[in-house]
Amino acid sequence: MKIAVLGTGEVGRRLGSKLVSLGHEVILGSRSADHAGATAWAAEHQAAHGTFADAASGAELVVNATGGLVSLAALQAAGAENLEGKVLVDVSNALDFSQGMPPKVVTPEGGSMAEQIQRTFPGARVVKTLNTMTNTVMVDPGRVPGEHVVFVCGDDDEAKAVVTGLLRSFGWPDERILDLGDLTGARATELLLPLWLRLMGTFGTAEFNFAVPKA
Amino acid sequence: MKIAVLGTGEVGRRLGSKLVSLGHEVILGSRSADHAGATAWAAEHQAAHGTFADAASGAELVVNATGGLVSLAALQAAGAENLEGKVLVDVSNALDFSQGMPPKVVTPEGGSMAEQIQRTFPGARVVKTLNTMTNTVMVDPGRVPGEHVVFVCGDDDEAKAVVTGLLRSFGWPDERILDLGDLTGARATELLLPLWLRLMGTFGTAEFNFAVPKA
Repeated sequence: MKIAVLGTGEVGRRLGSKLVSLGHEVILGSRSADHAGATAWAAEHQAAHGTFADAASGAELVVNATGGLVSLAALQAAGAENLEGKVLVDVSNALDFSQGMPPKVVTPEGGSMAEQIQRTFPGARVVKTLNTMTNTVMVDPGRVPGEHVVFVCGDDDEAKAVVTGLLRSFGWPDERILDLGDLTGARATELLLPLWLRLMGTFGTAEFNFAVPKA
Repeated sequence: MKIAVLGTGEVGRRLGSKLVSLGHEVILGSRSADHAGATAWAAEHQAAHGTFADAASGAELVVNATGGLVSLAALQAAGAENLEGKVLVDVSNALDFSQGMPPKVVTPEGGSMAEQIQRTFPGARVVKTLNTMTNTVMVDPGRVPGEHVVFVCGDDDEAKAVVTGLLRSFGWPDERILDLGDLTGARATELLLPLWLRLMGTFGTAEFNFAVPKA
């Protein structure tokens, strides 16, 4: 599949590399066409890079791996017309580090960043997933033992099925891909970040994840 | 130990019954001395009941099992002088059902209900715990399989040790009692409620809990 990964941070590069290794045609999008990190990554992985719009325009599926605080701006730069009808996988979290650690989790009043993205780009088919774990675990769930899970939610069932297929190819077994229903579920997973951050501090590692055993 | 359980809802009664069964001297506190539910519960369990102040005044340890939205009022009624120097176990969540389901989780700006209680009653030794699971699992963790955990946080280490001892007596093994540090950790556990509520809807049962396996 032709996949645009927006965002050149650790999350974007990790997802991009995994998608390349799975045989996808990946283009990494950033603010400028000559982003040094994106250029280096693309050379190393025989992949492409370009602006957010370059990346989104030719892609069948778009991954938002930008920081949540700048996601709307990045997606505006990508262009609403380049998102129209496409699956938009939102893995972002809006963390405000301006007041120091731990960062404050920013959520729009009564909603989630994912819903805000969906409202702003009604033609996109937004699916929220993977935002509740560190990037190494996203693409290699076997790094953490146990029956830990990845949450998925979105308003478009076909889009969710496409994303579930990608997660499966990352190594997530079906029974550990937890469908939380429509995109309002993103409120719940985005608000998990304060606990995630606190546990990272307690454990001294980011390589953990949540499991939800039931009776 | 002489323990006051404030709140006559399902959570208060469940905790009260467990504490009685463990040999503690329990008094269930409610708004009025003649609360029908509390009277019936006390008769059934050979325990006592009374007003919030009656309960707190003679107790060595106080459990706040009132709904988070009315906890401050309940504790005011209990009386600051009756909380002075005592361990105050806060198991509350502030859920606003006024707009329908799912309820909105209310947290004071930039903080948690537990911190608000601690600020309002500086003489109390507030420990937040047990608010991330349904009441049957609180007192009988074996109902859910797997290495699921209970979070504990608070500013007073001695108070946390007392509460950890109680949790142990409920059946929680040491390695599954996760100390999140000081009381600001309550921000993280209170914000877990939206995910808890969503999962309850997805699973169709409240008898589940969170585990946090790490690499």
